[in-house]
Order: sequence, then structure tokens, then C-alpha cells
Amino acid sequence: MKIDDFLKQDTEWLKGTGPMSHIVISSRVRVARNIEKLPFSQRADKYRLEEILTAVTDAAASVPLLKNSLSVRLKDVGDVDRLFLVERHLMSPEHAKDVEYKSLIVEPKEIISIMVNEEDHLRIQVLQSGFNLRETWHILDELDNELARRLPFAYSPKWGYLTACPTNTGTGLRGSVMLHLPALVFTGQIEKVLQATGKLGLNIRGLYGEGSEATGNFFQVSNLVSLGRTEDEVIDNIERIIGQIVAREEMTRKNILSRSKEALVDRVWRAYGTMKNAHIITSNETIALLSAIRLGVDLGIVKNLDRRTINELFLITQPAHLQKIEGKALTSNERDIKRADLIRTKLK
Amino acid sequence: MKIDDFLKQDTEWLKGTGPMSHIVISSRVRVARNIEKLPFSQRADKYRLEEILTAVTDAAASVPLLKNSLSVRLKDVGDVDRLFLVERHLMSPEHAKDVEYKSLIVEPKEIISIMVNEEDHLRIQVLQSGFNLRETWHILDELDNELARRLPFAYSPKWGYLTACPTNTGTGLRGSVMLHLPALVFTGQIEKVLQATGKLGLNIRGLYGEGSEATGNFFQVSNLVSLGRTEDEVIDNIERIIGQIVAREEMTRKNILSRSKEALVDRVWRAYGTMKNAHIITSNETIALLSAIRLGVDLGIVKNLDRRTINELFLITQPAHLQKIEGKALTSNERDIKRADLIRTKLK
Repeated sequence: MKIDDFLKQDTEWLKGTGPMSHIVISSRVRVARNIEKLPFSQRADKYRLEEILTAVTDAAASVPLLKNSLSVRLKDVGDVDRLFLVERHLMSPEHAKDVEYKSLIVEPKEIISIMVNEEDHLRIQVLQSGFNLRETWHILDELDNELARRLPFAYSPKWGYLTACPTNTGTGLRGSVMLHLPALVFTGQIEKVLQATGKLGLNIRGLYGEGSEATGNFFQVSNLVSLGRTEDEVIDNIERIIGQIVAREEMTRKNILSRSKEALVDRVWRAYGTMKNAHIITSNETIALLSAIRLGVDLGIVKNLDRRTINELFLITQPAHLQKIEGKALTSNERDIKRADLIRTKLK
Repeated sequence: MKIDDFLKQDTEWLKGTGPMSHIVISSRVRVARNIEKLPFSQRADKYRLEEILTAVTDAAASVPLLKNSLSVRLKDVGDVDRLFLVERHLMSPEHAKDVEYKSLIVEPKEIISIMVNEEDHLRIQVLQSGFNLRETWHILDELDNELARRLPFAYSPKWGYLTACPTNTGTGLRGSVMLHLPALVFTGQIEKVLQATGKLGLNIRGLYGEGSEATGNFFQVSNLVSLGRTEDEVIDNIERIIGQIVAREEMTRKNILSRSKEALVDRVWRAYGTMKNAHIITSNETIALLSAIRLGVDLGIVKNLDRRTINELFLITQPAHLQKIEGKALTSNERDIKRADLIRTKLK
């Protein structure tokens, strides 16, 4: 598998399938693992870092679940390609910086990826469309077992898995779900929901992880603590709370439809009209408009468009994707024009 | 001719034909006339007001140019119909108020109209599409001569025609031109142009005459003074100054096309996309969007739409027109929905 091969396929987190996919975009579970007797990546010298890279790469190469994976040293990958991998949610924005001793492994369907020498030696991620945390966790668990047979993970009977940052110690597990909550935003209920979710031990962020703002009504919800609970308990807790948020978004959508349908229809179709006709458009405006159009599709207001096209537009209108499609570096202004071109072509 | 008959035809000022019609919407000339030995309308009692009404109605009835005209007492006309006549620029907003002793005569093509007992006994207006002041004046002059043969107009060899307000004394003539100046607005040059025009003795207003703001880049330019000059001199002066504004708008459009075409194209098509897809839309937004689309048509950016459709939309999306089309009174919110419906149907 090569990086360019991904350009030809849908990325998993935007497939638009799976349970509750009208509200839940994707489910992600990741664990943090470190190899025992080796220093954490941030404290390791270059020889140790190379040792970690080699050990993980070799171990992964023989895991059946990872057959035909992309496996690359990030120092061998250009800036645009690195951003491209971030845009596909295959690695964190942090992993794209200071890349000398970092690598990335991505399974061909883009469901599994492993960051090597990010904050921990291994960050193993499984990503699926829709509200699917449990199955996602099972895949990850199986993979983790396979890797544990090949790599001695640092583990304390008292603390559980040892990690570079203590917030990950214990199960080392973080489950997160990407939600599309336009109705809660539209009616101003989102603040309350976010506060309540925070009090229940979950963390809410924007589209691209820590520190990023929620754009276009997309929210990424994950657990804060991974210590003192079993993996199943962590997953259970997220599933239960997310279930409540999803129910509230659904109810609110119905309320809007019965109380102010005309305003909603207006909003959705204006977004569609702008997308279909703009000749210059930024990333942020695109996400905001796609959010409105997606709601229109989910509620049956827009019928001549499917969720797949919307999801494809989310993906390919991102800066690195645009540049890979165009086959060359583009300035911000050039991207805004190219983005509008691409959207008009896709919506024709 | 009945008021409803007008609904089936284009109104003259929005025909979109005539010289320079890519920038000059319409040309209008009006004169103020009063019948001698009768008090001005605002000082006349009801017997005198009736006398004026009868005299003008009888005189107009025998003028060939006014054959088959609509001739109505405004007290016999409903609110919506009065607003409808204002929206078609056949009478002033002021003429629609306190209507007890007022009437209106409109020639079938809507080129000529006469307000009776507005500020003066007669306000005779001739309106044509495009930049056509001289021909417009000739029609008015001919009509004025015909009427003068039937009605003794108050005239002083020293002052000229006597009028209720001294600003109209002399020729009693006001020439005005409706301009579409999006490029001058877009580039911020409009303030300078307006100031210069003001210093040259012309007055600039919005779409609906005195006190109205310029909406959607439309400006109505007219002379301030009608005393101490011949009619031809007044017309000459307006034509010359308007010619300069038109030339500047044209040059600026060319500059924009060569320097920031993409931004202009974006603006035009976004306006089109919004118009074509909105489900709720106000009058003001409609005028602003139509202004952008008209510029797009004038510059060959929008090819699948003609100026006639745009002009029709200008006309029929106005509040009274919407209500006449719908055949019943509509609230402001209902109009915003109906307006969007109508626009979507016309642009399909």
C-alpha cells in the first residue's frame, strides 16, 4: 500500500454507514502502549528511538490483521502527504511534527493505524463509521493481543499499562465518537449538553482533536480517564452518554421540523445553492455548509444528493487532499478557487 | 384599462431595453402644472379639489396620447392596489396617502402617468427604459401642449410655471435617471461620485424617490433646480453628467473584470445560487441579489438568464405585487416565503 492509493478510496471515518450514522459520524478507540525496558519516546536518544521503530515495524509486519499495510518513516514523507494522513484521521497533527524518528502503519481499509513514537511508543487506533464503539474495541483488542505476543508491553499489576502521560495510564484506552449536532447548536441547547457531558467525565473537542474548535457543528467526544476502570466499563460509559446526546439531537431535529420547518428548509437549500455556485470558498465555510446540507439529507429535505457525496466532499476539499488531487502545491487563495471548482463539478 | 391589466405586462421602467440599458435602468421626466385661478391643492377646500379633479379628468379624456388610459379616484382603490401603483413607479409614495381628493391617470403602456392633486394640481410623468431623456422629454412636451390647450396653466412671464413649492417653479421640470452602479459601489468610488454629482446641481436618491436609501446599488439621479434654465438646458445638463457617471461605471467594470474577475464571478454566482434555492427571502435581500445577478448578466458571466427575467423578478417580488399575484393579503413573513417560491419557480 502506498499513500497515493488512499486517494482512490473513501476513508473509513467518512463512509457514512454504520449505526446511527445520521448523527454519529465515526467511532474511534485507541490505546497507548510502550515497550518495557525502553525509555518513553520523548526521553529516548536516537539509538533507542531507532530500536523502538524497528521493533514495532517488525512486529507489525507479521500480524495478519495488518497485511498489506502502508508502513512509512515520516521523514521520508513530504509535508503535503503528512497533512493528507492527518486529514484522513490516520494520525494526529502532533505526529506530523518533528518526524525524524516517527513512523506510521495504516491497514489498507484505513480502519487500523499505528503511530510509532508519538507520545508513546505505540498509539494503536481503530476507526469505524457510525456508532460502533464496541465492535471497534473488539478489533483493537484482538490486534493488541497479537502485538503483545510480539512486543513486551510495559505493564504494572497495580497501575495497568504504563504510559508517557499519567492520564493514559491504566487501560491506556481512549474511546471517542464524532457527532454531528446541528439541531442542538441551532436551538442553543449545545452549551448545556457540553457542560453536562463534561461533568460526566467526557471531553469534547472539534474535528481535529485536542485544542481544535468545533466547526460546522461537529463534536468529538471522548473519555478523560482510563485508570481504575476496565476497558468494557470505559466503553459502556461513553456509549451510554453518547446514546443520550444522540436521543436529544434526534428529538430536537423532530421539534425543529414541526415548529420551524420553513426556516430549516431555507437554511439547508441556501447552503446547497451556495456550495453549488461559489467560485471561491474556504475550508471552514465548506464544512459549515456541508453540515447544513448533511442535515438536509438526513431529514429528507434534500433528496437529489446522498450522504456518500457529502462525505467525499468533506474529505477531498481539505488542503492536502486538494493539493494531492491537483498534483502540486497550492497557495491558500489557489486552494479556495480549486475547492470551489471541485465542489461545483461534484454537485453538477 | 383596469389596474389588474397592468399585472399582465412589463412595466416600462423595467423593460431593460433602450440606450445604455446595462447601466441605465430608466429615464423619467415630469413637470408640475397648476390650473390658474384655482388654489394649490394643499390650500384648496373640498369643492375646489373636486373642481380640479373634474377639470383634469375631462381634459385628459380627450387627449389622443392618453387613449384607453386607466383613470381612477384613489379613494376607490384598495391599499394593496395603491402600493402596487407605487411599486410600478406610476405614482409617488406620497400620492398614496390621504387619497380622498386624488386621482391617477395611466396610459396603457405605462409610459405616461398623471397624478392629480399631489403637491401640484398635475404632476405629469413620462418614463422610458434606458438612457433616453431627450425622447422622454419630447413625449412629455407634446402631452403638455395638448393639455395646455384644454387647461389654463398658471404661468408667469417672469417666473415661468407657478408651482406649490418654489423649487419647482420655472420650467416645473424634473428629469431623473435610474442607474445601476455596482462596480462603483464595489470599489468604494461611489461616495466620491455622489459628492461630485451633488456639487453639479443634481440630487441622488434610492429606488423609491425622496428619502429612500439606495438599495442594491440602484441610484436615482435628478436635477434640483428648474428655474432660470430652459427645458433643453436642464435635460442637457443631466445627460452630460449622467454620461460621465456611466462611462466611469463602465470603465470600473472592465477594471474589475481584468483585476479580480474570480471574486466578481464568485459574488455573482453565489447570489444566483442563493436566489435559486432560498425558501424565505426579504425584499431587500432580493434587490441586493438581483443587483449582483444583473451585473453578471451584463458582463456575460451569467448566460442562462436574460435581463427580462431579472427585471420581472424585481417587479413581481415587491410586496403589493406578491399580494396581487396571490390574490389575498399576506403578512410580512408570508410574503418572504411566497417571494422565495415565486423566484424559485421563475429561475427553474
